Amino acid sequence: MPKYSPAIILVNPQMGENIGAAARAMLNFGLTDLRLVAPRDGWPNKRAVDLSAGAFDLLPPAQVFETLEDAASDLQHLYATTARTRDMIKTVFTPRNAAVDAAERTDKGQNIGFVFGKESCGLTNDETALCHSIIQIPANPEFSSLNLGQAVLLIGHELFQVQDQTQARVLSMGDSIPAPQSAFEGFFFRLEDEMDKGGFFTSADVRPTIVRNVRNIFTRSELSEQEVNTLQGIISALIGNKNSGKKKAAQK
Amino acid sequence: MPKYSPAIILVNPQMGENIGAAARAMLNFGLTDLRLVAPRDGWPNKRAVDLSAGAFDLLPPAQVFETLEDAASDLQHLYATTARTRDMIKTVFTPRNAAVDAAERTDKGQNIGFVFGKESCGLTNDETALCHSIIQIPANPEFSSLNLGQAVLLIGHELFQVQDQTQARVLSMGDSIPAPQSAFEGFFFRLEDEMDKGGFFTSADVRPTIVRNVRNIFTRSELSEQEVNTLQGIISALIGNKNSGKKKAAQK
Repeated sequence: MPKYSPAIILVNPQMGENIGAAARAMLNFGLTDLRLVAPRDGWPNKRAVDLSAGAFDLLPPAQVFETLEDAASDLQHLYATTARTRDMIKTVFTPRNAAVDAAERTDKGQNIGFVFGKESCGLTNDETALCHSIIQIPANPEFSSLNLGQAVLLIGHELFQVQDQTQARVLSMGDSIPAPQSAFEGFFFRLEDEMDKGGFFTSADVRPTIVRNVRNIFTRSELSEQEVNTLQGIISALIGNKNSGKKKAAQK
Repeated sequence: MPKYSPAIILVNPQMGENIGAAARAMLNFGLTDLRLVAPRDGWPNKRAVDLSAGAFDLLPPAQVFETLEDAASDLQHLYATTARTRDMIKTVFTPRNAAVDAAERTDKGQNIGFVFGKESCGLTNDETALCHSIIQIPANPEFSSLNLGQAVLLIGHELFQVQDQTQARVLSMGDSIPAPQSAFEGFFFRLEDEMDKGGFFTSADVRPTIVRNVRNIFTRSELSEQEVNTLQGIISALIGNKNSGKKKAAQK
C-alpha cells in the first residue's frame, strides 16, 4: 500500500457509472480521498454505488465542492490530467513520472491532488491553468481519449508502483523558446528599481537577499520572451496606475 | 505506437459493457487483435459497441472461439492475468516486466497473447495452467479485483510505454514547501484586480487569455508561501508607490 493518499478530484463528472469505476480503481490502489466538483447528477448517486464493486462501503465519504478552487484549497500541488497537448507553458509528466514526483512531494509533507475533467471534453483551459503541472497519458494519437475511470486507474497504478521508477519530466513550450538573459536583466532592473521607489525594502541590509530570492522566482520559471514582455506590461500597468493617479491629482 | 500487436483474449466474458471497455482500452494503446472465447451473451453485442466509444468501427473484427486452446493456437507465449497468487510454479510478472518480456519476444518474431478470465472469478486453474507465465497486478491486498476493462487497460498502457525513454529534471526547493492553493488564489485575485485598475487590459476580449497566461507563469514556478508573500509585498510596494504619489500630489 502507498504511504500517501493524494486527492482524486473529478471536475463536473457526468455519469455516475464513471464515478463508481473511479472509486473502485482508487481503492484497488489504496487511494481514499475522493473529491467531486459539482457532479452533474448530484450526490450521492445510485449508479456510482452500483458500479463501484463495493468500494464506497470501504472508502471514507466523497467530499463534494462547488468549484475546483474550493476542492483544492488545502493542496500544494495539482496535476491536471489531459489527453491533449495544450498551448500552455507548464511541466508535462507521463503518469509514471508524475507518480515519482508525487511520492517525493508526499515524502516532504506536501498535500497533492490529481484533477480529472468531465467525460465529454476534459478539463477547460482555466481549470488546467489553475494546476501546477500536466499529466499527459501516452496513447494512440488517433484514439487517445481514455474513459474517466480508466484514467483514474492508470494514475493509481503508477502511484502504487512508484518505487520501481526513476524520475523524468520535460517542459512543453510549444514553439516558443526561453527569453535571453538580456530580457531578464531588463525586467529585473526595472522591477527592483520600482520596488525601491515603492519603499519595498525596509533596510538596505536585506536588499541583496530579497533581490536574489525574487530573481530565483522568475529564473526558474523558464519564461518565454513573450512572458517577460507580459511581466513588463504588468509593471507598467501598476506604475501607470500610479502615474495616472498623479496626473488625475494634478488635474484637480 | 507499439511495433507489435499481441492478442488480447477474453475468456467467457459476461458483460458486453466490459468487452466494449476492453476494446476502447486496446485501441487507446494501439492494440488491434481482440479474441473472445465463448462470450456469455453471444457476439456481436450491442452493449459492447455502445461502451466502446467507437473503437469497434476502427478495429478489425473480433474473432470468436469455442475454447482458449483454439483462440491461442497460433501463439507462442501466453500471459495469464490474475489478481490472486496461485499455487503454481510459474514465472510471475508485474504488468511492467511482462511488457518488457513481451517486447523482447515480439522482436524475436514470437506471437504472444494476454489472457483475461471472466468478471466473476477470473481464470480457472486449468486456463492458467495452459498459459506460460502469470501477470499479477500489484494492488491493494484487501481490494485487489480489477474490472476487466481496467485490467486490459493496464496491460495496454505498459505495452505502450515499454520503449519510453526518460529525461530528468528537478527543482530544488531546499526545506521550503509550495504554497497552498488558497495563497495563490489570494495573490491572483489581487494581482488581476490591480491590473484592471491599472488599465493593463486593452480590451475585455483578451483578458481571459492573458489572465490564464499570467497564472501559468506563477503556477509553474512552484512558489513557496514565503515567495507568494514576497510577491504580495511587491504589489503593495508598486501600489503603495501610487498611493504615496497621490498623497504627495494631494499635499500640494
